[in-house]
Amino acid sequence: MELKDTIRAIENYPKEGIIFRDITTLLKDKDAFKKAVDEMAAKIDKDVDKIIGVEARGFIFGAALAYKLNKGFVPARKPGKLPYDKLIESYKLEYGEDSIEIHKDAIEAGEKIVIVDDLLATGGTAKACVNLVNRLKGEVSSLVFLTELEKLGGRKTLKGQRVYSIITY
Amino acid sequence: MELKDTIRAIENYPKEGIIFRDITTLLKDKDAFKKAVDEMAAKIDKDVDKIIGVEARGFIFGAALAYKLNKGFVPARKPGKLPYDKLIESYKLEYGEDSIEIHKDAIEAGEKIVIVDDLLATGGTAKACVNLVNRLKGEVSSLVFLTELEKLGGRKTLKGQRVYSIITY
Repeated sequence: MELKDTIRAIENYPKEGIIFRDITTLLKDKDAFKKAVDEMAAKIDKDVDKIIGVEARGFIFGAALAYKLNKGFVPARKPGKLPYDKLIESYKLEYGEDSIEIHKDAIEAGEKIVIVDDLLATGGTAKACVNLVNRLKGEVSSLVFLTELEKLGGRKTLKGQRVYSIITY
Repeated sequence: MELKDTIRAIENYPKEGIIFRDITTLLKDKDAFKKAVDEMAAKIDKDVDKIIGVEARGFIFGAALAYKLNKGFVPARKPGKLPYDKLIESYKLEYGEDSIEIHKDAIEAGEKIVIVDDLLATGGTAKACVNLVNRLKGEVSSLVFLTELEKLGGRKTLKGQRVYSIITY
């Protein structure tokens, strides 16, 4: 089975001229979901301490990986969702900006962290997560994505980091 | 280890007089996270076809369970997040209402489904998910929650369903 074949292309979504890669067709296929998680897990160093999943679809792969590899799971959340002391990082969007938050006690100094999301596009959110880990004195071991839109230059944004993706467009 | 001890109580959040149960302290503890998922998995029938995770924290447990049990994963999402043909169900909140959506092709007629979330409170969101499964002619096998606030009457809302929770308050 080719994982790429289990992802649905939706044309002109969310706007004219864009092809949206809909991973719900991969997720609902038990063999595809298992294969995707296993392939992502193979990219992750054994000595990692915690997995960060980026809200919301990053929670799906991040949590499955944390369970499989027996690591702690840390949610990086949209603003206003975390109830305890937290750090915030803002990043640019095509129009305007957005932010991502993490609890201050989510990571201890020196811990090795993997950042997981379903998609690497421009890399803005992922870079904000790297900054959050660094501010907590954690060490980003790598970033692992299910899919990557190569033309959007996410790897350039994440220069200096180890970046893996399973499916590229 | 008592799972309950790994959950942080935050007083007067999100408003005066409420004790918020913060599960991020459970999630970041690899042994607690594994134990929580394993205990939830023990409640799930072997012949289930798919796991629904309710956005956003339900994705964390739903995806880990789907991976562990080798089932398909279906996200039930907040309005406007799913890109394909979908069904919507609204439910009442303390003030106003909210809605939850699912793709029409997420479930096939006759499939056995487990609905997973981190918290059973009034049961409004969970009941809306049950309705979505029924409209797609799926069969709700059970609902599995990490935590339950018993005083809020979620089990009454879900009368007639098999409901499990790991930690009760």
